[in-house]
Amino acid sequence: MKNLIIASTSTLHNGSYLDYLLPTLEDHFKEVSTILFIPYARPSGISHDEYTSKVKKAFILINKKVKGIHEFENPIEAIKNAEAIFTGGGNTFVLVNELYRNNVLNTLEEVIKNGTPYLGTSAGSNICGLTMNTTNDMPIVYPPSFRTLGLVSFNINPHYLDPEIDSTHMGETRETRIKEFHAYNPQPVIGLREGSWLEVRNNSVKLKGNLTARVFKRNQEPIEIDPETELNNL
Amino acid sequence: MKNLIIASTSTLHNGSYLDYLLPTLEDHFKEVSTILFIPYARPSGISHDEYTSKVKKAFILINKKVKGIHEFENPIEAIKNAEAIFTGGGNTFVLVNELYRNNVLNTLEEVIKNGTPYLGTSAGSNICGLTMNTTNDMPIVYPPSFRTLGLVSFNINPHYLDPEIDSTHMGETRETRIKEFHAYNPQPVIGLREGSWLEVRNNSVKLKGNLTARVFKRNQEPIEIDPETELNNL
Repeated sequence: MKNLIIASTSTLHNGSYLDYLLPTLEDHFKEVSTILFIPYARPSGISHDEYTSKVKKAFILINKKVKGIHEFENPIEAIKNAEAIFTGGGNTFVLVNELYRNNVLNTLEEVIKNGTPYLGTSAGSNICGLTMNTTNDMPIVYPPSFRTLGLVSFNINPHYLDPEIDSTHMGETRETRIKEFHAYNPQPVIGLREGSWLEVRNNSVKLKGNLTARVFKRNQEPIEIDPETELNNL
Repeated sequence: MKNLIIASTSTLHNGSYLDYLLPTLEDHFKEVSTILFIPYARPSGISHDEYTSKVKKAFILINKKVKGIHEFENPIEAIKNAEAIFTGGGNTFVLVNELYRNNVLNTLEEVIKNGTPYLGTSAGSNICGLTMNTTNDMPIVYPPSFRTLGLVSFNINPHYLDPEIDSTHMGETRETRIKEFHAYNPQPVIGLREGSWLEVRNNSVKLKGNLTARVFKRNQEPIEIDPETELNNL
């Protein structure tokens, strides 16, 4: 019994924090009054308090309270007792490192599998995949493992970017990077463009938003899938 | 007694492999007839043989022979006996993982510190810094450590990219990523644009090429430095 929103990004260009998702979140969290926020990914290195304030301001618009996991004595108990959980974006290495350091990964997996509504954006979405090997982030800290929650049977690449046709930059395109990933790893990867999200309800995984997403499988040409496509048997 | 070229990229836009560097390399390798090539970074997942062929074709233009490290029974001995060494680009995680797996990092550090001429491009440049924490690559494998050769007293960010002013993409800029790095790590970072390289001769480290480079220090505003700037006391 799973109930997740796995979003590519928290914020669209010219938008404000979470605004494009609020109608969806109002429904997703309709039976919830307080959301437990995991600020570990620390975007731009901001503090857990600063990050939690930012999230509070967004959720007040749909009448939800927010409490940061760092405000609790015992983070494992905080997760067990949470009505709902949101993990925000930032740096995936920092996030995963903190999840291991606080020994909360197994508990997080357990409560989400048992139905606690979950929202992830960016780094918070990356960790829903089998591993964090398809993050776009800089490896600024060394986590004890790249294994993540495995709440879906594939890996996620948030902020998916198409190759720029007129680019003069010689760094690898996202597609090349994911091809390199498949030289070493078997699982499919979903490239989620900004504005897209996955809705997970029990065993169903559907693409939501107006955009197509790009699906990469080992030794196959990538394909585009339409919104509402069922992804539970990738 | 060090003698290194640490280049941002192997290839410029509209250029061919290594061409812009060949005049510099002709001088750098002037006393060398055969270069030991380390193909471990496997760009786009190509094989060690394929990658070594590509490198041979470039170096034949300046009359140098190339031998891949994978062609030797014992990679440690190959490094000890090398007249010169080139580590090519690709995926830094894959490269560092293979360097650890083959147990060659210490030997590589030792021979380069004792004067074996070295060339690195992209991932092969990243490993000259203190750690690989400022790579741009996707973490497609999990290396045993992020510690690298420490041949210079800072970290390197190759393929440095300025923020795009009119970008609508919400992923972090390179500058933001390096700022996040400094929330957890003390060492300076040199953002090397494509076309720039560092020339290391004994204790001198100089920026070469026509472009400025961007230097990031913890808790300071980044600065631009000109070609020929001495970087040994960053």
